[in-house]
Amino acid sequence: MRDIVIAAGALKGSLSAGAAAAAVERGLRQSGIAARLHRLLIADGGDGTLEAFTAAGGRREARLVFDPLGRLRTAEFGLLDDGTAVIEMAQASGLALLAEDELDAVRASTYGTGQLMKAALEAGARRMIIGMGGSASTDGGAGCLMALGVKLLDKRGRMIPLGGGGLRALAQVDASGLDARWREVELIIATDVDNPAVGERGAAAVFAPQKGASPEQIKRLAANLEHFFDVVETALGVEVRTQPGGGAAGAFAAGLMAFLGGRIRSGIDLLLDHRGFDDLLTDAGLVITSEGRLDAQTLGGKAPVGVARRAAARGVPTVALVGGLSGDDADFHAAGVWAALPIVTAPMLLHEALADAERLLEAAALRLGYILQIKL
Amino acid sequence: MRDIVIAAGALKGSLSAGAAAAAVERGLRQSGIAARLHRLLIADGGDGTLEAFTAAGGRREARLVFDPLGRLRTAEFGLLDDGTAVIEMAQASGLALLAEDELDAVRASTYGTGQLMKAALEAGARRMIIGMGGSASTDGGAGCLMALGVKLLDKRGRMIPLGGGGLRALAQVDASGLDARWREVELIIATDVDNPAVGERGAAAVFAPQKGASPEQIKRLAANLEHFFDVVETALGVEVRTQPGGGAAGAFAAGLMAFLGGRIRSGIDLLLDHRGFDDLLTDAGLVITSEGRLDAQTLGGKAPVGVARRAAARGVPTVALVGGLSGDDADFHAAGVWAALPIVTAPMLLHEALADAERLLEAAALRLGYILQIKL
Repeated sequence: MRDIVIAAGALKGSLSAGAAAAAVERGLRQSGIAARLHRLLIADGGDGTLEAFTAAGGRREARLVFDPLGRLRTAEFGLLDDGTAVIEMAQASGLALLAEDELDAVRASTYGTGQLMKAALEAGARRMIIGMGGSASTDGGAGCLMALGVKLLDKRGRMIPLGGGGLRALAQVDASGLDARWREVELIIATDVDNPAVGERGAAAVFAPQKGASPEQIKRLAANLEHFFDVVETALGVEVRTQPGGGAAGAFAAGLMAFLGGRIRSGIDLLLDHRGFDDLLTDAGLVITSEGRLDAQTLGGKAPVGVARRAAARGVPTVALVGGLSGDDADFHAAGVWAALPIVTAPMLLHEALADAERLLEAAALRLGYILQIKL
Repeated sequence: MRDIVIAAGALKGSLSAGAAAAAVERGLRQSGIAARLHRLLIADGGDGTLEAFTAAGGRREARLVFDPLGRLRTAEFGLLDDGTAVIEMAQASGLALLAEDELDAVRASTYGTGQLMKAALEAGARRMIIGMGGSASTDGGAGCLMALGVKLLDKRGRMIPLGGGGLRALAQVDASGLDARWREVELIIATDVDNPAVGERGAAAVFAPQKGASPEQIKRLAANLEHFFDVVETALGVEVRTQPGGGAAGAFAAGLMAFLGGRIRSGIDLLLDHRGFDDLLTDAGLVITSEGRLDAQTLGGKAPVGVARRAAARGVPTVALVGGLSGDDADFHAAGVWAALPIVTAPMLLHEALADAERLLEAAALRLGYILQIKL
């Protein structure tokens, strides 16, 4: 019997990737299946990225930084054994840090992420993976850049206000305060979205609604981002507005590319490379992944689909255990997910499923373990 | 690759066994699985028994009979190729024939089932399978017996009223009007419950609540059944009150045993014998069954569990596709169901799941078909 690779993702709102991996492993072991189990955590650059990268090695450092609304909180970054720093922007500037009634797409900034990046630079990192996703902000990375010493000034030479709402005041850019060491840093922007910074598929239009922006605020943020990148591009002579993926995390990705020259890579691919996923596949007969929700329309950006496609390319099928599934199973199959198995056991309410996710996931893995032992 | 036997049961309230079997077959075929598929319908004596027995042969006869509340309706019985008649009591006396606001556990009778049995006798049947289950009545079979010519009389020599409420008036029994041909009939009572007619686990206590009886009516029906079987046993000199299974269908089973000498057999076993299930297992690697709801506490009486145990005894695992599952998967596994796979795909309401059952079942079969093709 060949190995099984558990490449667990978080079930958003209920279960971390680590807890999901443990639940899947318990269920499979209880089924009595004889396969050797390997376990890794997956993330796409958003929430859980730091946990996923440091699960098997490296260390974490904590710093006191500003949250999206300028309140102090402790956030962590990672230092892998090869010297690469891992920054999960959601740690400092994430949507999950705000209560429902605190959402403020206009004020939220990436300042705290800049503080983490600065700390990583001071710690000696010369390669940095910046995980996009789960952000509260739509500031084009302006907050982060200011934390790194970039002066973003209004007509009268004052620093513009933090948050996407402040970008309209931008008149001049002065990057001379950027630490010279950034030129030596290989900056990798980890994201699985391909939206550009501006336009119909831009950061404000597509992502601001889930950050609490009203239709009127979305328009304002879109116009502000247009203005911000106009001024930045004129000042620096680089074009980032239409770069695929530049819209990630409220156009944070585009801002980083403009000032620090980062390049975009698939978050899930970076992680799988880091964890030696392809080597694990050599002896594997199956990959099991997990995800909160799979939807045939939004397959593209989901980490488990990245996992499944990479495994499929090596001839290894992937079963995705999912909290909820919508769409046609044949479409998932055609998209590279060999089979998706919902974990709900009966008609139930969403909050019941969320509260019981750990037990449901373990039971689904047990069930899958039983079925995998059937020899036709 | 070995064969797959689809032994489909109805999803109560949403899908007949026939529709379930077709949905499972469509899903499996879509998965591209190479196995040969055999298809049969299962039932435990209750609703769907007639369909299951006649799905592959025999004929059905229709008669105009009384429903549980004395209204005329068309009901069918089956005549199998070997001359056996199949009577599904739910056809004439079933709970499903009444609207929610018509439920009347006190008045409901088995009279119509007696009419069907009489018609089967006239049609020449000398072996009869009487399927218990899904009944609206708690009349100890009194209505059926009266339809067959038994005189159940009160003190003044009048026929007692139909329904469990009428039993208290019983004073004398006169079976002389029973057709003499009943002595030549092999009567098989098909049920998978083992409750006795009376007592704490008796028909009134356990089954009358779901037939609409109030706590006070339950007490009254229980006392009436005690009285009925007291008088009957004294008159006929047979003891049926404590027979396991005598409580089936509102103690209909006990009444039949007292007057016609029927013997009880497992409904699902009778059906599986009729369909040559054991022969199908010879080349089978898997049985797939379906059921509306599996509950670790009520496993005993469920047809799919009977299927699974019989298959397990021949070394063939069974996967049950279920509308809802409650309890521990390891308990189902230990009870003989190799794995139970819920068909719901996400948190949803019961009425949504019921309305969409056919599609959900087909998709679950597709999913299962994919997983079965994974070679570890």
